[in-house]
Amino acid sequence: MSEMRTVRGMRDLMGPDMQVKNYLMATAAKVFEQYGYEPLDSPVMELWETLSAKGGEEVEAETFKFTDKGEREVGLRFDLTIPLARIIATNPHLRKPFKRYALGKAWRYDRPQAGRYREFEQADVDIVGSVSPAADAEVVLVALEFLRRVLGNDYLIRINNRKVLRGLTEKAGVTDDFASECFRAIDKLDKIGRDGVLKELKDSGIGKKQSDFLIDAISIKGSGTEVLQKFRDLLEGSIIGTEGVDELELMAEIFEESGVAELIEFDMSLARGLDYYSGPVFEGRYLGKPTVGSILGGGRYDQLIEKFGGQPTPATGISLGIGRLIEVVLARGVGKELTQQLDVFVAPIKRPMLRYAISFQSELIQAGFSCEVDLMNRPLKKLLEQADSKNAKYTIIVGERDIAKGEVSVRNMTSKETEQVKSIALTKYLLKALGK
Amino acid sequence: MSEMRTVRGMRDLMGPDMQVKNYLMATAAKVFEQYGYEPLDSPVMELWETLSAKGGEEVEAETFKFTDKGEREVGLRFDLTIPLARIIATNPHLRKPFKRYALGKAWRYDRPQAGRYREFEQADVDIVGSVSPAADAEVVLVALEFLRRVLGNDYLIRINNRKVLRGLTEKAGVTDDFASECFRAIDKLDKIGRDGVLKELKDSGIGKKQSDFLIDAISIKGSGTEVLQKFRDLLEGSIIGTEGVDELELMAEIFEESGVAELIEFDMSLARGLDYYSGPVFEGRYLGKPTVGSILGGGRYDQLIEKFGGQPTPATGISLGIGRLIEVVLARGVGKELTQQLDVFVAPIKRPMLRYAISFQSELIQAGFSCEVDLMNRPLKKLLEQADSKNAKYTIIVGERDIAKGEVSVRNMTSKETEQVKSIALTKYLLKALGK
Repeated sequence: MSEMRTVRGMRDLMGPDMQVKNYLMATAAKVFEQYGYEPLDSPVMELWETLSAKGGEEVEAETFKFTDKGEREVGLRFDLTIPLARIIATNPHLRKPFKRYALGKAWRYDRPQAGRYREFEQADVDIVGSVSPAADAEVVLVALEFLRRVLGNDYLIRINNRKVLRGLTEKAGVTDDFASECFRAIDKLDKIGRDGVLKELKDSGIGKKQSDFLIDAISIKGSGTEVLQKFRDLLEGSIIGTEGVDELELMAEIFEESGVAELIEFDMSLARGLDYYSGPVFEGRYLGKPTVGSILGGGRYDQLIEKFGGQPTPATGISLGIGRLIEVVLARGVGKELTQQLDVFVAPIKRPMLRYAISFQSELIQAGFSCEVDLMNRPLKKLLEQADSKNAKYTIIVGERDIAKGEVSVRNMTSKETEQVKSIALTKYLLKALGK
Repeated sequence: MSEMRTVRGMRDLMGPDMQVKNYLMATAAKVFEQYGYEPLDSPVMELWETLSAKGGEEVEAETFKFTDKGEREVGLRFDLTIPLARIIATNPHLRKPFKRYALGKAWRYDRPQAGRYREFEQADVDIVGSVSPAADAEVVLVALEFLRRVLGNDYLIRINNRKVLRGLTEKAGVTDDFASECFRAIDKLDKIGRDGVLKELKDSGIGKKQSDFLIDAISIKGSGTEVLQKFRDLLEGSIIGTEGVDELELMAEIFEESGVAELIEFDMSLARGLDYYSGPVFEGRYLGKPTVGSILGGGRYDQLIEKFGGQPTPATGISLGIGRLIEVVLARGVGKELTQQLDVFVAPIKRPMLRYAISFQSELIQAGFSCEVDLMNRPLKKLLEQADSKNAKYTIIVGERDIAKGEVSVRNMTSKETEQVKSIALTKYLLKALGK
């Protein structure tokens, strides 16, 4: 028998990683529902026709694609936005704005590397049907509220607007054909630096003067409305660029009013790849561990739903990268609140005591405690070790003589003290002892 | 553009279905953790080598199998037990008993039909490392506690033991070669009736006398230890059969002691297909809607982990069919507690009021309320309709004159009464009004 393993680039999650994942997912769902988003789940698999509607060779190269037994081409979803777009396009009756959240896995045929997996978990919120930049601001606020709960304050969301970028290339005199190549080069500022971007622009056939203009522009960043005034001055005369700045300005006002302005940076170099974004775009980083990369991303995608055969429908959304957030939370140190702790371990001293032990368990579970019974028929010393390994707060020892007297021994696993407790008073005793 | 749709046999979940799914999953996780099970997540995809270790042509026919870009054969998991067996086999250091739960999807290339999908959701608990029938009893108790919380009392878990069945064929004088064919025929008693089973046994070359003996035996069923005495009498002289009854007897004692005996039926006709089961087997049905089929299944599988190259390791577990349970809960009628309800809808009367509206929202969200702000810039009448469609309890109307006075209007959506409330006292007002 050859050695079994996981599929390349995929991993099992257990222990603290899994506890943290569950905590992040539960917190995300809680925050999303508080903001009035409703849950939606879709199959992990979509017809290839659907997945490829977004277009691009990249999709072909990065998708787990296969032919099913019915000779249909299908693939695993690479994000949670495509399924949403399909659902909106095929359910025109859905009341707008439609605000949904989705928690689920997606798959990409990337080169596996540290902290980057071919199967990854996302938590998305999207608002469909509103053209207002207030909708863009809302999804950012939702993400910030989630981050506040799980990370405190050490993060930054960078924001730009595709319209601003288009205005920029317009002002630089770059034609439409070259604009997307410019965006692609600009987006790399973080990775390849100023000189790297200049070289890429030159290689794409962009003139020196244009490149200089662009490179100065994309260095503008900062928080609040002041930096947006710089955007505005630079884009004067470009209708689309000015429209982009207006949208960002409304968002800035909302962030100000909500007291989160210092967590936002307007950054003209942010382009978010070559995706389907049409307006504001967002990207978030954890400042305590910048190597971890982007922990969230998103933006407005007003043309996507049409591509799926739907009515023209504005939409915006944000996606939290749960895998990277697990790393971040683990690196910060996981507190006791995230470690699974058992209220009570029940230790039957001999085989015939097992059924009494299990009846105590049933009672305690129904009273809301967590409670485990030994199933290994071990000696008392081993039982107490097992209770310790499960972080049990109390161990109930069920011995023959005690049972005959209608009692059990209750051991406080912290103080190591043991008390005799009447069986019928056990739940009450523990409710008091555990402060429930 | 051709019409988009889901992959055949798969479905989107939204609205009440999704609310019920989330409720079932959250309740399952809660109960599982109370019993000391820890969460484990594994990739949806396994190497074909792993999936096929269980053997059988059925696996080949029923698996979503494909070749990835690295020319490796992989497939989507068809249950949550195979991934567990792989993990146990390749992580021999895991402390025993290892009790894990898993919530996740699995895929089978079945013929799609009403209530049966090719992508389905399961919730599993398993205990690895204990040979004791108390472990089998525990997973059944866990399932019963879950069912008690979500369905009340209207269900029955049937239990048998593969050893009992083997003892039965032994007593009937059926050779090992024919035993599994017998099990297969026996398992169909519910579907094809007594005569159908007799015919199948005859077709398999089982003699009349043997068939008569078997068919009388498998009609034995009932709850409590009395019915097990009938099993015992029938299997007298068969070592394996008697061992099987002994195991069921310990389980029966535990069920008795836990007060759930009347929810259990020992049923000699239960075989649970041709799976990997080696000891006790379980199957559960909801009595309020028998057509929905089995809502849970499981059993002991002491040889499976070895097949994955691991040490011989006893294991037992149970799997809840969440898809069917969604149907059952919906059929019983979903109470108000499962319908998403919004505490507060915030309605800005005009565009410039939006940023005030959003600042109220931020404050209320942090105070723990659910709260949605209108993003559509609609007239008041439409806003109140929107608030109603979201089941909002209160609507906060943010008008220009109110804001100038440092106030908002708060409308109770049930009584339709409106009060003026100072902005700074808003949270306090709502905490009181909503009784939080």
